[in-house]
Amino acid sequence: MSKDFYPSRGGRKATLIPRTDPVVYRDNFEDSPIEKALIHKYREDGFIILKNLFSEREIAVFQDELERLKNDEQLKSLDYTITEPTSGDVRSVFKAHQISPVFKKLAADKRLAGLARYILNDDVYIHQSRVNYKPGFKGKEFYWHSDFETWHVEDGMPRMRALSMSVALTKNYSYNGALMLIPGSHNVFAVCEGNTPENHFKSSLKKQEYGVPSNENLAKMVEEGGIVTATGDPGDVIIFDCNTMHGSNGNVTPYPRSNIFFVFNAVSNHVTEPFCNQPPRPEYICTRAETEPIPA
Amino acid sequence: MSKDFYPSRGGRKATLIPRTDPVVYRDNFEDSPIEKALIHKYREDGFIILKNLFSEREIAVFQDELERLKNDEQLKSLDYTITEPTSGDVRSVFKAHQISPVFKKLAADKRLAGLARYILNDDVYIHQSRVNYKPGFKGKEFYWHSDFETWHVEDGMPRMRALSMSVALTKNYSYNGALMLIPGSHNVFAVCEGNTPENHFKSSLKKQEYGVPSNENLAKMVEEGGIVTATGDPGDVIIFDCNTMHGSNGNVTPYPRSNIFFVFNAVSNHVTEPFCNQPPRPEYICTRAETEPIPA
Repeated sequence: MSKDFYPSRGGRKATLIPRTDPVVYRDNFEDSPIEKALIHKYREDGFIILKNLFSEREIAVFQDELERLKNDEQLKSLDYTITEPTSGDVRSVFKAHQISPVFKKLAADKRLAGLARYILNDDVYIHQSRVNYKPGFKGKEFYWHSDFETWHVEDGMPRMRALSMSVALTKNYSYNGALMLIPGSHNVFAVCEGNTPENHFKSSLKKQEYGVPSNENLAKMVEEGGIVTATGDPGDVIIFDCNTMHGSNGNVTPYPRSNIFFVFNAVSNHVTEPFCNQPPRPEYICTRAETEPIPA
Repeated sequence: MSKDFYPSRGGRKATLIPRTDPVVYRDNFEDSPIEKALIHKYREDGFIILKNLFSEREIAVFQDELERLKNDEQLKSLDYTITEPTSGDVRSVFKAHQISPVFKKLAADKRLAGLARYILNDDVYIHQSRVNYKPGFKGKEFYWHSDFETWHVEDGMPRMRALSMSVALTKNYSYNGALMLIPGSHNVFAVCEGNTPENHFKSSLKKQEYGVPSNENLAKMVEEGGIVTATGDPGDVIIFDCNTMHGSNGNVTPYPRSNIFFVFNAVSNHVTEPFCNQPPRPEYICTRAETEPIPA
């Protein structure tokens, strides 16, 4: 097993330790594919929202593809499709970039993969992808967490050299369960208490109970950085560092939300064995085999 | 039993029927105690937010009183104090205007009772009062409802001639479970499906399952009026008509919320027998006995 630079869980006490990895793997931002100021903001806050990165026409195509996947009866029985227990409605389909030609092309789009390569200064591959359908009226909250904490402990991702991009397909209001992020939280690693239960991924996709910060540490981060709700329109893209603390409140409004979600990891940061005493999570949650770089 | 002007539940189908009662019981707003434009807005939207109605010094006094009630061990065992089952922490104390001299005085304050009298054009009494402590991290959502629907069906409040005032003691952000309201929703009555279970008040104080609009009718109202989140500061007061559809999302942020809540009812609108086949709810939820008008 490689060295554990960010130990968490395993009976440890909750605390905040400094990040020792860069956020943007570049010395200067001269040849940035987006405005330099945005790269500075990304480094400072741990996230940016790019407005109207995709056109209405492009979004319409993604929405059609999402509908198609959602209604594909064959997909419903597969392990990488997450359905709601009572209604059977599809909530998430993983492996979006592998099972859908439309989303495979989207993952490789320069506006996404190109920017990921620039920020991480390396070739990239998709660590995880999924499409999400979040209904209105009864949308559940998702508690605060750093994705990196889980990817590190449960997937064996060695360093903080990955980022997420969420392409909005619907409007994100402040009140329909939009993503909330804590600016600056990516600069500290919140060591989490508790151990990792067996087959944690089965429950953690629905409700995260382990790998969450203590109330005290969460309050500290919020006191420092506040909270930003990622409101916006279809075609906007939220880009956030793997260690940015984020979560969402529930959604009792009639407005559903859907998005396409890609995690880009640097090829030099390929996952190793998990840093907990559990077997690796399934391939659809954490890519181990198909990690060939996205062509530039 | 008096005539049922707004039949709901009892096996009825969900539908929207027009309101037949005034919102502001005045022909013109010449002698309004607040800006006339605000009264117009209240009539149109079904709510207004009055900024800084109470000073920092006044709010500090209310906060102290709230702390005192919250920590009063004797109160914890009384039926009108609502505690959280697991922690035993106090969440709400009803009868605030009866058990606390500070809140009795506040209920009679001209800025509140005077405005209620003006809007309802009648003497008023307190139909219900409570102080609320809503914790951060794990605040639960409260589903959409019209208070009037419940007060009518379960308490026998004959007409829409009542209003609520919520005095904010903490900051209301868009993301910490602040009240959401649907502008214009007070002009229709959402007939609710289902029956009224026995002792419904015991569960409905925690989670409202009956007396809620259908998804379809909720969506219609939101499509028409949108959603407004009542963000603001300590000392702000939200005033909303008894039939304004409102709810709140949960709160996973560290920011708690607390407020003092008064329902003013016109003396001419005194409750009768409930419009369901259930005994009246307890006095602390629905005042029947102590309905002497608040002195002007």
